Amino acid sequence: MDKKESIFMNKGDGENSFAKNSAYTQTVVFKTKPLLESALQSLFTKDFFTCKLLNVADLGCSSNPSAYALMSTVIENVRLKCRELNCQVPEIQFYLNDLVGNDFNTLFNGLSTFDQKGVSCFVMAAPGSFHGRLFPRNTMDLIHSSYSVHWLSQAPSLTSKEGLPLNKGKMYISKTSPPAVSKAYLAQFQEDFILFLKSRSQEVVSNGVMVLTLHGRQSPDPSSKQSCYLWDLLADATAHMISLGLVEESKLDSFNVPYYIPSQEELQNLVDGEGSFATEHMDTFTLLIGDKNIWPIWELTAKNIRSFTEPMMSNHFGEAIMDKLYNRLTHLLVEDLAKESPFTISIIVVLRKK
Amino acid sequence: MDKKESIFMNKGDGENSFAKNSAYTQTVVFKTKPLLESALQSLFTKDFFTCKLLNVADLGCSSNPSAYALMSTVIENVRLKCRELNCQVPEIQFYLNDLVGNDFNTLFNGLSTFDQKGVSCFVMAAPGSFHGRLFPRNTMDLIHSSYSVHWLSQAPSLTSKEGLPLNKGKMYISKTSPPAVSKAYLAQFQEDFILFLKSRSQEVVSNGVMVLTLHGRQSPDPSSKQSCYLWDLLADATAHMISLGLVEESKLDSFNVPYYIPSQEELQNLVDGEGSFATEHMDTFTLLIGDKNIWPIWELTAKNIRSFTEPMMSNHFGEAIMDKLYNRLTHLLVEDLAKESPFTISIIVVLRKK
Repeated sequence: MDKKESIFMNKGDGENSFAKNSAYTQTVVFKTKPLLESALQSLFTKDFFTCKLLNVADLGCSSNPSAYALMSTVIENVRLKCRELNCQVPEIQFYLNDLVGNDFNTLFNGLSTFDQKGVSCFVMAAPGSFHGRLFPRNTMDLIHSSYSVHWLSQAPSLTSKEGLPLNKGKMYISKTSPPAVSKAYLAQFQEDFILFLKSRSQEVVSNGVMVLTLHGRQSPDPSSKQSCYLWDLLADATAHMISLGLVEESKLDSFNVPYYIPSQEELQNLVDGEGSFATEHMDTFTLLIGDKNIWPIWELTAKNIRSFTEPMMSNHFGEAIMDKLYNRLTHLLVEDLAKESPFTISIIVVLRKK
Repeated sequence: MDKKESIFMNKGDGENSFAKNSAYTQTVVFKTKPLLESALQSLFTKDFFTCKLLNVADLGCSSNPSAYALMSTVIENVRLKCRELNCQVPEIQFYLNDLVGNDFNTLFNGLSTFDQKGVSCFVMAAPGSFHGRLFPRNTMDLIHSSYSVHWLSQAPSLTSKEGLPLNKGKMYISKTSPPAVSKAYLAQFQEDFILFLKSRSQEVVSNGVMVLTLHGRQSPDPSSKQSCYLWDLLADATAHMISLGLVEESKLDSFNVPYYIPSQEELQNLVDGEGSFATEHMDTFTLLIGDKNIWPIWELTAKNIRSFTEPMMSNHFGEAIMDKLYNRLTHLLVEDLAKESPFTISIIVVLRKK
């Protein structure tokens, strides 16, 4: 699967769009706000404000309104600090990044009502892959990314020497996957994340900050339930489509998602190994799946999953079965949530350019 | 009419889209290339290349491929000059601007196949109105705009003290319009173009260059045929819809386009009066409407007109009559072209920041 063709969120603002189903993403943004604020405050020395321009990028912003939450937080904090230091508020340039196929039209729809609070702000879209250069050298003061860096540039190659699928019946690392599967996934993540760090290290100014939140795990075991719950659920729903004769078995066997859920230790090793950034903070937090504060009803959880997985699933399995597939997913999820409380782990990391 | 809601080109890449009907715009870009190249070369002093970053903006780029033509020209010229001076090629940042409602998704579709010729380029979208600030202070080296600056921020108010329409049966200055109409249009253009210059003067670096091409006229008379041909044609087609009972007369009477076709002298006076830029070059060129090299068949001319006027017309007169209206326009155009050769005048102006 060519990742660049189908890793975007559902477009527009309809029932299944990402724009309308991003409660989870917004909760993550809310949870990480204090750390973002302290990272921002650490940037604001008296010297800093002589530069007159603050460059901020949001990587993998998709088309949902959380990009605006970042912008509001930055503006608020800059205003407060400038009042405190009694200096002029700098101009702020925001770069909203996602792949070329992202729905930038929907993203921009919200712009005309965005409140800049009197600060001179310039909002740009920066289309392209963050697994490569996006911005000129030595320009970015703050880079933020929420729930994006776990996407890989491509799924790892998971076939045996004889060309047979290694990950039958699954689409991500699972309890039943052979060790070669998790090895290949980790290798792909290592390659991608190092390229990510190398690209950003050229773009971020000295002493500049990156605040990254991504899907992660606490367990050292990459096939633990906290890691593979979502993709197991989607594989099970797809298996049901196979049992109904709607999907060929080989279709699922040849499909693996370009996504990796790392542990803190794996991340830390890559940051240290690459060497351009110092880790100022690394932490995890937990969100219960089905938390009524995040998802008022079960169905919404399934809609949320649909909004960010459907383009990729539809590209591989065909648009025709999407409604049936996600109905089955909703059914499985409701069954699970009646028995237990599955949760997701997020890793938040603050890195400073050396 | 709220200009910001409906001044964009037809979206997507379908039959009537701007992306598929921009032969005229591309011809204009081709015609102005030599002047753009000489403006570029004038930027490239030895000192210039120590800056390591060239910032270029295209204002009112819409969703058609002419933005890529600009990018190619800049890249080619930078490479040639750097080879000549034996210095390193700088990184180039392109900002593609249009209103928030522009179809940026279609614009970005072409990005993945764009040939950067080995130069490190970063392409950004900058959504917003050029009748105001778009970029941080003192950042732009080159600003380019082709066939956009004649759009006004809003149509002038054209009602009498009693609230009666001043420009009955027309939608732009016409032979039958009272003098108050052309006065109000000129006043609106003066206000908008001065705001345009003031905004750009803050954004362009000292010695930076603007290359603007816009619809213009050679005649001092703003109601001469070379100026009002297009809008008279569209008003006549609309009048035909009224005669068929499909549009109410008052709908046309209350409609005026946010567009102004200035003379060289009017432009020169505004540039001189505002005072931030020196005029390095100002010139006009003529394109025959119906030139087979530009529009292979008559129908294409009408499609071209449709692609940039339909969103605005549809917004005011309703989507239902659009096919009939533009069929009538095609009919009128074919009749005219059999009798004579109407033409358009373009003004190209090169301004240097003082």
